[in-house]
Amino acid sequence: MKKILGVDIGGTDIKLGIVSAEGEIVESGKIPTLAGEGPQHAAGRIAAWLEERDAGHQETVAAGIDCAGLIDGSKGYLYYSPNLPGWVDLDLFGLFSGALGMPVTVDNDVNCAAWGEYVLGAGRGTRHFVCMTLGTGIGGGVVADGRLYRGWQGLAGEIGHQVIDRSGPRCMCGTAGCLEAMANASSIVSRARSAIAAGAESVLEDSESLTSKDVAGAAADGDDVAIETLAAAGRALGTGLANIVHLFNPEVIAVGGGVAGAGDLILEPARESMRGQLMADIFASVKVVPAELGNMASLVGASMMALGKSD
Amino acid sequence: MKKILGVDIGGTDIKLGIVSAEGEIVESGKIPTLAGEGPQHAAGRIAAWLEERDAGHQETVAAGIDCAGLIDGSKGYLYYSPNLPGWVDLDLFGLFSGALGMPVTVDNDVNCAAWGEYVLGAGRGTRHFVCMTLGTGIGGGVVADGRLYRGWQGLAGEIGHQVIDRSGPRCMCGTAGCLEAMANASSIVSRARSAIAAGAESVLEDSESLTSKDVAGAAADGDDVAIETLAAAGRALGTGLANIVHLFNPEVIAVGGGVAGAGDLILEPARESMRGQLMADIFASVKVVPAELGNMASLVGASMMALGKSD
Repeated sequence: MKKILGVDIGGTDIKLGIVSAEGEIVESGKIPTLAGEGPQHAAGRIAAWLEERDAGHQETVAAGIDCAGLIDGSKGYLYYSPNLPGWVDLDLFGLFSGALGMPVTVDNDVNCAAWGEYVLGAGRGTRHFVCMTLGTGIGGGVVADGRLYRGWQGLAGEIGHQVIDRSGPRCMCGTAGCLEAMANASSIVSRARSAIAAGAESVLEDSESLTSKDVAGAAADGDDVAIETLAAAGRALGTGLANIVHLFNPEVIAVGGGVAGAGDLILEPARESMRGQLMADIFASVKVVPAELGNMASLVGASMMALGKSD
Repeated sequence: MKKILGVDIGGTDIKLGIVSAEGEIVESGKIPTLAGEGPQHAAGRIAAWLEERDAGHQETVAAGIDCAGLIDGSKGYLYYSPNLPGWVDLDLFGLFSGALGMPVTVDNDVNCAAWGEYVLGAGRGTRHFVCMTLGTGIGGGVVADGRLYRGWQGLAGEIGHQVIDRSGPRCMCGTAGCLEAMANASSIVSRARSAIAAGAESVLEDSESLTSKDVAGAAADGDDVAIETLAAAGRALGTGLANIVHLFNPEVIAVGGGVAGAGDLILEPARESMRGQLMADIFASVKVVPAELGNMASLVGASMMALGKSD
């Protein structure tokens, strides 16, 4: 049975998986990234990991590699990754093709997660699909008529940096009112802390250690401040989702990432906000659903992308 | 030499053209739309117009039809057109194929204009291109990797209804802060009138008959109120353009339509506003340019779309 090597390169660890053609992870592992040693070093250790498990590549026919950052997936070219200092302007396709000696694909983690969800998760059965990851950052991958939509330089789908409120709070990128600044994890924490600091009664505390997960937990337990905080993020999210519908007209939008763990506490206010912005027929036809593949979505999606390129 | 019939159906008139394979209009005409008589009636009169000029279709090998409205161009299906009362949920593809007896395409006017600009105008030589029309409404057509990007129901590219300022003015569609409400022709007129009503000195008058063309004319003559009015619309436009870059990553964005006639008086502030929102490398690489085909862009683009479907 042919298998694919999935490689998800993070700032600290590289997650590895041997994945079946059906998307099942049959063996998984983790090695340190050691970004400072450079990509050639990492590629060599990845090749060694695979060699130990499938000597001479008896079963593994291709490798799908992903990492966060600006990547042109059509060429496997990394412009820059915030998590991998020094990995700048690199032909990762050439490097990994050489080190692994098999067909490879390289794309960013969000595009790979979107492809995984499209093939095996919340987007299966559609042809037009958007997958959004909602966490510290907000990213997106777009599938258009069954193909990943990458754009001219591979930089399409930067959903989090669409401006939805020119008078809104400043984003990490420097721009005011990006969706990311209004619906990401830290915006949820700041909003909750501001409300508590202003005297609102809550089980949460105005503390440095507060997380968006704490807010989601308190909201699930009925805490009003936490519920309203998630609803405010959800309404901003809904504006971004309605924009996505107007621009991309997808059949399904899946929302994944840590913040999406709050489920309908954030998605229901998002849908309500979308409803106010879309024609009734269009709102009724588009589905906003939770992503299904969890935190292995990128690795599995990278594998499925590589499977498509294998013989 | 094979030719194509181009048909641009407006609320009052139907513009007709016999177009060469190179996009030259070799013969043109106009007949009344008479929308109330229904689409079958219009199709019959269009067929008669063509028969008079090219009896038995000796030269004309296909027809490209466009009109404003919600259309699924992949099927030639009209959901609804604001300019054609009663033309609702219609298989225009079937209707025109039958009436004309040749291969036809049907799409909305903005997609056709975008296709025309892509093949023959400001987008030629690219693979990833966005064309925006800036007038009473703001619309867009997206070419992705050489194909028109239509989305699931053919409704993608509604650039004007992206929300860029949730606390902005209300759009005709009912939503607050759509790009259209902040950069279209009437937003320019209202902004100029408000400034004059508030006492700003200008050659323009706070009058019902003021048009965005008057504002552009005054700005070209150095009128400060007019210049700042266009600049404000341009800055809003720039936010919308930066969002388009983040989402679609095109190589070139062309801006056409009446308001774009103001040229750099609106485009230069737009570029400055984009610069503030984009990474320097990305801003430096994307081009924002005027559209080239003028008010025949839709008809010519519809013809080029049909040419692609002919034998």
